Amino acid sequence: MADYTFYTNPMSRGQIARWALHEAGADYEQVIIEYGPDQPAGFVKANPMRKFPTLVHHHGGHDHVVTEAAAICHYLAEMHPDAGLLPDAHEKADYFRYLFFAAGPVEQAVVANSMGWSSDDPQKQGMLGYGSFERTVDAFESMLAGRDYVCGDRFTMADVYVGSHVDWGMQFGSLPQRDVFEAYADRLRTRDAYKAAKDIDNTLIAEREAANA
Amino acid sequence: MADYTFYTNPMSRGQIARWALHEAGADYEQVIIEYGPDQPAGFVKANPMRKFPTLVHHHGGHDHVVTEAAAICHYLAEMHPDAGLLPDAHEKADYFRYLFFAAGPVEQAVVANSMGWSSDDPQKQGMLGYGSFERTVDAFESMLAGRDYVCGDRFTMADVYVGSHVDWGMQFGSLPQRDVFEAYADRLRTRDAYKAAKDIDNTLIAEREAANA
Repeated sequence: MADYTFYTNPMSRGQIARWALHEAGADYEQVIIEYGPDQPAGFVKANPMRKFPTLVHHHGGHDHVVTEAAAICHYLAEMHPDAGLLPDAHEKADYFRYLFFAAGPVEQAVVANSMGWSSDDPQKQGMLGYGSFERTVDAFESMLAGRDYVCGDRFTMADVYVGSHVDWGMQFGSLPQRDVFEAYADRLRTRDAYKAAKDIDNTLIAEREAANA
Repeated sequence: MADYTFYTNPMSRGQIARWALHEAGADYEQVIIEYGPDQPAGFVKANPMRKFPTLVHHHGGHDHVVTEAAAICHYLAEMHPDAGLLPDAHEKADYFRYLFFAAGPVEQAVVANSMGWSSDDPQKQGMLGYGSFERTVDAFESMLAGRDYVCGDRFTMADVYVGSHVDWGMQFGSLPQRDVFEAYADRLRTRDAYKAAKDIDNTLIAEREAANA
């Protein structure tokens, strides 16, 4: 049995977790899940909310379930310290700040914007942890300006999660195209683990498109 | 100089970070920030997005800035390992899963619900990482049922952040009142660090109310 069971769908945030699995060099078995009521019992048991990606770590006689793409990324970095993806002591502030900034304000602002939800009311903006889409995007850009990676010069697991937001945003237009975002995404796309993971998901997507043609 | 400079406002998510500072036993100096254009330069430099809480860690000749309440909680647990707030190896899956579940889907669902934003369109719900408010609240309840704390029997730093959502939700009605939530919040409110931190913020709030009366 592989160390991890990875429940995913190629057309989902599961792409982030797969990239993380390859960066960590983790031994995993994938189970492709379709949207809809017919889903395998192992998946529904692991995650009653039926969200993917869901990762089950078979470890020391226990099954540890991890959900939320950012949590999966960081968990894999912790379980595979030799892969060198964890932050050093002086990198921890940026690492966790950026990880939660992307998982919170950025995700929230992008989703609200794509749903057409916004508010011009300053009082209501104060209730929003992210303020407004424009303000969040500007902050995100300034946080990535003048550095190659989240922690400065060195790639860490935070780049898999933060970078996936930027990579996705540049490809699908959910973030505005800006030089800082484009350069960061280009840098990440050269990584072997990125390419290996995307090849698997893109092949799965192409197979279903061919089957449906 | 204290180890940390803590920029906060008593009527904000800064309450979460203060509780974390007290749990960690951190040596901090507070700087109270008001909403509006007149804010101290040190704060604006540390966080151009001008969000509180913002924590600056003066460490080894460097100033490390941490924002995002969940990141501040976990960062403090890492910097103060002797406080015993970090997860053990077998607790890490729950610790990071719950931390990111609260910072992502729960925060997003609660904010959207309080703004009156929702969607009955199944396709649009698929775009939402949290699906719907009801689905997120039910999942959150099931995740907390049958355990005293995020990691089971033992309090960890994840409880400061996850618990603050529940504590706040029960007090202000942003989450529906359910027995599992109430019991968890009651358990947390007995902690010395919780009481010490809340006393400070509640005193600050009472002082401004008296000044404005």
